[in-house]
Amino acid sequence: MATRFIISIDLGGTNLKIALLDPRYRILSRETLHTRKFSNKNTLIAAIVYAVNKVKKENRLNKNNILGVGLGLPGSIDIKRGSVHFFPNIPGWKDVKLRGILERKLGLPVFMDNDANLMGLAECTLGAAKGARNAVCITLGTGVGGGIILEGKLYRGSSYAAGEIGHIPLNEYGPKCNCGGRACIEAYIGNKRITQEAKRVFKRNISLEELSRLANSGHSKARAIWIKAGRRLGMVLAGVINLLNPDCVVIGGGIANAGKVLFDKIRSTVAEQAMPVQAKHVRILRARLGNDAGLIGAAILAAEKA
Amino acid sequence: MATRFIISIDLGGTNLKIALLDPRYRILSRETLHTRKFSNKNTLIAAIVYAVNKVKKENRLNKNNILGVGLGLPGSIDIKRGSVHFFPNIPGWKDVKLRGILERKLGLPVFMDNDANLMGLAECTLGAAKGARNAVCITLGTGVGGGIILEGKLYRGSSYAAGEIGHIPLNEYGPKCNCGGRACIEAYIGNKRITQEAKRVFKRNISLEELSRLANSGHSKARAIWIKAGRRLGMVLAGVINLLNPDCVVIGGGIANAGKVLFDKIRSTVAEQAMPVQAKHVRILRARLGNDAGLIGAAILAAEKA
Repeated sequence: MATRFIISIDLGGTNLKIALLDPRYRILSRETLHTRKFSNKNTLIAAIVYAVNKVKKENRLNKNNILGVGLGLPGSIDIKRGSVHFFPNIPGWKDVKLRGILERKLGLPVFMDNDANLMGLAECTLGAAKGARNAVCITLGTGVGGGIILEGKLYRGSSYAAGEIGHIPLNEYGPKCNCGGRACIEAYIGNKRITQEAKRVFKRNISLEELSRLANSGHSKARAIWIKAGRRLGMVLAGVINLLNPDCVVIGGGIANAGKVLFDKIRSTVAEQAMPVQAKHVRILRARLGNDAGLIGAAILAAEKA
Repeated sequence: MATRFIISIDLGGTNLKIALLDPRYRILSRETLHTRKFSNKNTLIAAIVYAVNKVKKENRLNKNNILGVGLGLPGSIDIKRGSVHFFPNIPGWKDVKLRGILERKLGLPVFMDNDANLMGLAECTLGAAKGARNAVCITLGTGVGGGIILEGKLYRGSSYAAGEIGHIPLNEYGPKCNCGGRACIEAYIGNKRITQEAKRVFKRNISLEELSRLANSGHSKARAIWIKAGRRLGMVLAGVINLLNPDCVVIGGGIANAGKVLFDKIRSTVAEQAMPVQAKHVRILRARLGNDAGLIGAAILAAEKA
């Protein structure tokens, strides 16, 4: 039987990434388009179709040697119906039956899920949490996303909305969050909040990259910002660890690049706050697959479901 | 084949309950002993053995018509080794291989688990959450215990310590908790804390029963105490609901007797704070099996594992 490849798509608020992967989830080729160029839903769908067909053509693939298309999406998905509830950061999508539309246009089976779930699936299959039975995966970015693997499987919840670690409250009262609630951890440590705090402290615009660099070279004010974020995330994670008693927590995304200063504080807070049995068991790990986690997770999803 | 019965034991900090159940989990007879009478581990084990043998004798049962003994325990259990890590409210137990000891003394198979897990199992099998695929069950008592059913099964975590809803932090900073952490929800709404607050407000000792009665007859200060507790529990539950997207949350235990005033506030807080998809899906229910949940859960465990 011929080798069968997988086409993976990772749709984000900024980039649309498309890649061809082999059955061992190695990325053979990739392409990145700018999401914002596609002003509405239909042009974005047309761009996806165009890019998939381009990958097929360039690699001389046909239906028989493509296992399927895996699709990671930045929002709330109804897995069963194959539809998008909405994307918080891409306007114009509401209850779109995307899987059906793409399957008709592509003539290929399409498998889709939330991007944080797919990051979790990838890190647990091939990355930092490889072999873990129970793992909690977090992406720290504009939003704070989460994917939960329980008993070796992606746990999606009763209406496919599980894993929203970013929307666990850090306090009884606190700043308003994009989700409609208050005091969610995302409202304290999302990219924007950290950038705002850095601007307030440094009296100028400062990127997260620079803030991480400064912290790692010992700058005390920069370190203080990451230490505060680490303590806050550590408190919320202690609750998640007490609740789920996982083997590991995997942390990725842009903010995770702050590195040691952030991770040291997360780990020490969990050690202090989580219950002894759970704290002793859990490992807090940095994600390993970086920006490719979404593409790899989408391929794993397609391979497992196809 | 002869009908096979189950002997269930529910060990608490105050009472040791023993019951005989039929294969449909109906309680046929029961007995309650006072836990505090047994000054140490060995006398408590001897009392369990005595009580089980008494039930056997009185009901003229032998090994062939007893399926097994189910045992609910108030603390941290290693299910695999059949040992007790410790009991927070009964001194003198540390790494006791209780299952092996009881099986030798009783000549019957013994199955054990944490009492909050067994309450969850009972409520999901026969009680308020019957038929739920994903459910979170909470007992509000001296401690705030939890049992989680995911994909129709009791979820125990990687070292059998999952479900500790009582030890999710409500705030970044807050009162010290028995678990060693700070600001856990148990440190705000455990029996003792509510009683302390009631004493402060009413300037006299007031039982939780009286506080509930007063609230339900419209007493505004009593209502305020339960409303505050309901809002706090609702905030923590909103986080759990965002994370696990369950079908329902079942709430039982002494404090749950406060009834409508408490449940109304829990529900309205979850409706405001949880994310729309999760909030719309979840039902917040009062436990149905009352004080028998532990005995029934222990019997279900024994029947499923035997």
